[in-house]
Amino acid sequence: MRLADLDTPTLILDRRRLQANIARISARAHALGVELRPHMKTAKCAEVARLATEGHSGGITVSTLKEAEYFSEHGFNDITYAVGIAPAKLARVAALQARGARVSVITDNVKVAREIGARARALDARFEVMIEVDTGDGRAGVGFESDEVTAIGQALHEAPGVALRGILTHAGQTYGCQGVDGIAAVAEAERAGAVHAAERLRTAGLPCQVVSVGSTPAATHARNLEGVSELRAGVYVFQDVFQAEIGSCALSDIAVSVLATVTGHHPERGEIVIDAGGLALSKDRSTASAPRDVGYGLVVDSGCGDTLPEMHVARVSQEHGIVKAASGALPFDRLKPGTRVRILPNHACFTAAAYDGYHVVDGATDDVIDTWARVNGW
Amino acid sequence: MRLADLDTPTLILDRRRLQANIARISARAHALGVELRPHMKTAKCAEVARLATEGHSGGITVSTLKEAEYFSEHGFNDITYAVGIAPAKLARVAALQARGARVSVITDNVKVAREIGARARALDARFEVMIEVDTGDGRAGVGFESDEVTAIGQALHEAPGVALRGILTHAGQTYGCQGVDGIAAVAEAERAGAVHAAERLRTAGLPCQVVSVGSTPAATHARNLEGVSELRAGVYVFQDVFQAEIGSCALSDIAVSVLATVTGHHPERGEIVIDAGGLALSKDRSTASAPRDVGYGLVVDSGCGDTLPEMHVARVSQEHGIVKAASGALPFDRLKPGTRVRILPNHACFTAAAYDGYHVVDGATDDVIDTWARVNGW
Repeated sequence: MRLADLDTPTLILDRRRLQANIARISARAHALGVELRPHMKTAKCAEVARLATEGHSGGITVSTLKEAEYFSEHGFNDITYAVGIAPAKLARVAALQARGARVSVITDNVKVAREIGARARALDARFEVMIEVDTGDGRAGVGFESDEVTAIGQALHEAPGVALRGILTHAGQTYGCQGVDGIAAVAEAERAGAVHAAERLRTAGLPCQVVSVGSTPAATHARNLEGVSELRAGVYVFQDVFQAEIGSCALSDIAVSVLATVTGHHPERGEIVIDAGGLALSKDRSTASAPRDVGYGLVVDSGCGDTLPEMHVARVSQEHGIVKAASGALPFDRLKPGTRVRILPNHACFTAAAYDGYHVVDGATDDVIDTWARVNGW
Repeated sequence: MRLADLDTPTLILDRRRLQANIARISARAHALGVELRPHMKTAKCAEVARLATEGHSGGITVSTLKEAEYFSEHGFNDITYAVGIAPAKLARVAALQARGARVSVITDNVKVAREIGARARALDARFEVMIEVDTGDGRAGVGFESDEVTAIGQALHEAPGVALRGILTHAGQTYGCQGVDGIAAVAEAERAGAVHAAERLRTAGLPCQVVSVGSTPAATHARNLEGVSELRAGVYVFQDVFQAEIGSCALSDIAVSVLATVTGHHPERGEIVIDAGGLALSKDRSTASAPRDVGYGLVVDSGCGDTLPEMHVARVSQEHGIVKAASGALPFDRLKPGTRVRILPNHACFTAAAYDGYHVVDGATDDVIDTWARVNGW
């Protein structure tokens, strides 16, 4: 099969770029002396997980129980479900464990911690739990200096059927950084906060085997991870325009793109219409806060080589993308109706979620060498 | 099955509200003396299409060929594919027609019009085509007063194997209106523009059987559709917070909602965390331009009755929603971890697209009476 045979819009994955991205972060984890537990929320794909865990323990991170179930079926049975657990979901966790998976869950709430103990008894199950601490992101987690760290730790440790595994944090504020030094400073704050929380558990006589940190920017630029046991990062496998803008990668590292077709010309407005709109690209606007705002994605040629002169998807409706040039004229002659282009996504995790799978290419060729499935939903 | 048994996040559809929304627009079409061709891009569901076409011809509108194929398999064989056709897609259209469907496609480009003729010959097929005109939306379509209307009409009419069906327009600028009078004025401009384009075709001796207009706001508030043959509207079946904000409906008409669970409390920031994030709600930010900005959705109680005191999803990451109160304090006691809430979507078409189907309820009860599938993708 060739790219030219595919209906549009559709999702393309460049295996060569994928492998280079994976090799880079894998080497970073080895150099920093930590385990790598790649976050599968981005790729949601067993083939990608196999590549990303090569040379590491095989442990992965997931964002949904559906991912946990899918990856367990595909042989990945050391799983951290890194979104605060809703107690009602523990029945699915117990079912996974009964089928041989080891699943760690997280919480930042003492009432939930107690409820996990109650559910362990009710379900005759054993749950492994980490305490989520906040190291500056302000999304979830108890403050790493808060007394709640030890209160939750005690509640978990005292409950029969519950094992306190350690501390987990995600310094998502790396996404607000621009440049290597800013990211490295956040990565150090994340490390120090997580290690501090872990020390508080240990001082209180509580177990803390795992200290888990990470995001793609931090994994790329952290200078020291002393006291940390494992690194989680996800979007690095694909990268995206936002990651390029904040300094995690170059545009030429981006491994996923949407193949689209030109359907209309509006020279009077300086606009070209393509058949990739808000559903095909997602409505993520990450780059709105980046130095270069590329709207809903950056337009490159169908070989994913040349960046066309600063063309981006300026507006979307459900199935329409409106392409504009940031400066200069749009190349209407080169982009006649029917011409294929590729869109580099703002945020790969969101764009990929609209598709059931990937058409895999190996570099800038027209040959589709494989099709890999994704797991979506909950 | 009861709502309490469902894993979260998941999508709930209130059939009672759905039927009332459908009855309202169906009656509007009858009163205005036009055919109703509901746009299935919102629901993408055969059960909804059956309800929405009751008392009308059975014709539907779709936004993807995957929808066209799905609906044809479910017995809907009068289909308008209302997104500018990429010529390479005509092979799929021909295949649909060979299986008994009548599919109209649209274009706003004279080169595409000629290519449709070439593909009709190459595929030994016959294509029915409408000319998309722009009546002020500025997305797609040739200007309704432009000479291109007749140029495209001539190109289509002259091509063996191509039937020129008429004029289609979508005055999406109704979405920029606030209030009934503004919407009615845009609906009149849409009507007048489409009728003008149709008259130009007829004056040039070209056929123009169909004059197709519509959007949910226009369908709700148009005062006169003289010269128009059919009305397309889509989101009205579900409605959403944005439609309520611009005056298409009341909040109590919104038929779809996301069921979510509270997973964390952050009283120090006045925030509650739920397990419905950017994938479960979509990153659509339609209400950013509305009088009341509800972020990524409005939070209501699990029975979808009371609107909790101005609570909305202020921020999202992939699987986290951060709930804040617009004014006053969050009811932390009422929303303990584990409590279920529902989120009324900003934009129903985008939120629904994250799910494979609907859990159907009938009013404010806990009983799930049915599960209806959706078709996603391309």
